[in-house]
Amino acid sequence: MVLSSAIEALKEALKALPGVGPKNAQRMAFHLLERDREGAKKIADALNNALEKITSCERCNTFCESTLCDICASEKRDKSLLCVVETPADLQAIEQVGAYQGLYFVLMGKLSPLEGIGPDQLGFKRLNQIVAENEIHEVIIATNITAEGETTADYTQQMLMPYDVKITRLARGVPVGGELEYMDQRTLAAAFKDRRATSQ
Amino acid sequence: MVLSSAIEALKEALKALPGVGPKNAQRMAFHLLERDREGAKKIADALNNALEKITSCERCNTFCESTLCDICASEKRDKSLLCVVETPADLQAIEQVGAYQGLYFVLMGKLSPLEGIGPDQLGFKRLNQIVAENEIHEVIIATNITAEGETTADYTQQMLMPYDVKITRLARGVPVGGELEYMDQRTLAAAFKDRRATSQ
Repeated sequence: MVLSSAIEALKEALKALPGVGPKNAQRMAFHLLERDREGAKKIADALNNALEKITSCERCNTFCESTLCDICASEKRDKSLLCVVETPADLQAIEQVGAYQGLYFVLMGKLSPLEGIGPDQLGFKRLNQIVAENEIHEVIIATNITAEGETTADYTQQMLMPYDVKITRLARGVPVGGELEYMDQRTLAAAFKDRRATSQ
Repeated sequence: MVLSSAIEALKEALKALPGVGPKNAQRMAFHLLERDREGAKKIADALNNALEKITSCERCNTFCESTLCDICASEKRDKSLLCVVETPADLQAIEQVGAYQGLYFVLMGKLSPLEGIGPDQLGFKRLNQIVAENEIHEVIIATNITAEGETTADYTQQMLMPYDVKITRLARGVPVGGELEYMDQRTLAAAFKDRRATSQ
């Protein structure tokens, strides 16, 4: 009886944010209403604006505000390279490194039978079409090195086998700055298995 | 150049949420746009609805959707008891216990010279007026047991000294279920200092 229905509705809505449970949702609702009504207004406006403007790139699936994203539309990118990632966040992480100049394809998820996400729910059909219809020299599969990411990578690899295209995957191994002592066994095993020849 | 300006604006806006930094804001923005556009719409609507409807109770300051909150408007509450708390969240925590039947006064913050919050920024003037004009038997100061909460409690206590009213504060001590071995020194010291007579 204490809280207003408007606050209850706000708490409930905030639980849609990843990693936000009931306690945290309440803390956020109270914080905004007590101390930052301007910030609350900005969030509401930014959400509505993003929902209205953000669509998917027709070609690569990533977020964009027009039919083609800046990368797909760019003349400077190497169109013979295609990097397959799970999400726009992954694409952005790779872009921030600045070492890759090809195009992308964003699956918008990963295979996850438990959550009912099979090949049909992801963009595999379009990926197949892109590889079939364009002169692509190499497809770099850059899914996450998790169980589901690896399954997704395996599926992608199988699907692209019929095409005359080089298929590569990200190197697995000890992260730069990583200490062997603190590395988990599977990472160490992968680093041994995929060890590189020294290039002296 | 990768992300759209609408996403950048959304990430920036989400940082207004307590405990949400740039990384987390990006994760939230991507999650909503990738997987939960309906949830995003609900958040925006709930925020706008709350901003429009939620005001402060004229008497006690807590959130409400009319001039008086349900507690202040209730005939059943004991009007001779006044409990002073920092925030509506504190009020709600006490209400959930269900052991208190008096009225409240919400300061909407705590004294914090570092953040420029002095007595004038909080509701002390109105609190003073309420105690002066009503027949209040006891004021229970229930600020947080933190440095700033204790300062706020001290100030409240001093301010109400001139009135013929009993002033009490929450008991400090070992929390129920707490083990002495893991208790911090100040809590243990307070529990010793405020030890109760056994009521056999």
